[in-house]
Amino acid sequence: MLTAEVYIMPKASVSDPQGLAIKHALESLGYKNLNQVRIGKLIIIKLDSQDKKTAGQQVENICRQLLANTIIEDYSFKIKED
Amino acid sequence: MLTAEVYIMPKASVSDPQGLAIKHALESLGYKNLNQVRIGKLIIIKLDSQDKKTAGQQVENICRQLLANTIIEDYSFKIKED
Repeated sequence: MLTAEVYIMPKASVSDPQGLAIKHALESLGYKNLNQVRIGKLIIIKLDSQDKKTAGQQVENICRQLLANTIIEDYSFKIKED
Repeated sequence: MLTAEVYIMPKASVSDPQGLAIKHALESLGYKNLNQVRIGKLIIIKLDSQDKKTAGQQVENICRQLLANTIIEDYSFKIKED
């Protein structure tokens, strides 16, 4: 079995109100040294597959087809063996 | 500047309907070798700080105080130098 960890973040040029809200909440809790907070998605996919190369292509397709909105989001992923 | 990458996932014992919905959507797109899909949050915090050890303690506190609901979520993080 292989595990894919997919990281999806809003592009740097896209505003991230949820991240900004977390930053403000943390500042009101007394954390004053925060430069930026951004929030994205972490998706963990367990694949019944042995071949890392094929799995990588599959996860690339999955990201483009369903998981990431490439207009406003960047994605990256790692494939690990269990 | 330091960058903290915080990973927050639902605990293994907690159901994850959003992950299940993605799994079903991918299966209907033809991906048949999926064992499990789970979805969590990726939070990237840029800290105006130089000391990795202090930053680690700070991010640990931030996770417990605000970012993670430790009843239903697990968290982990990495601190990287920019």
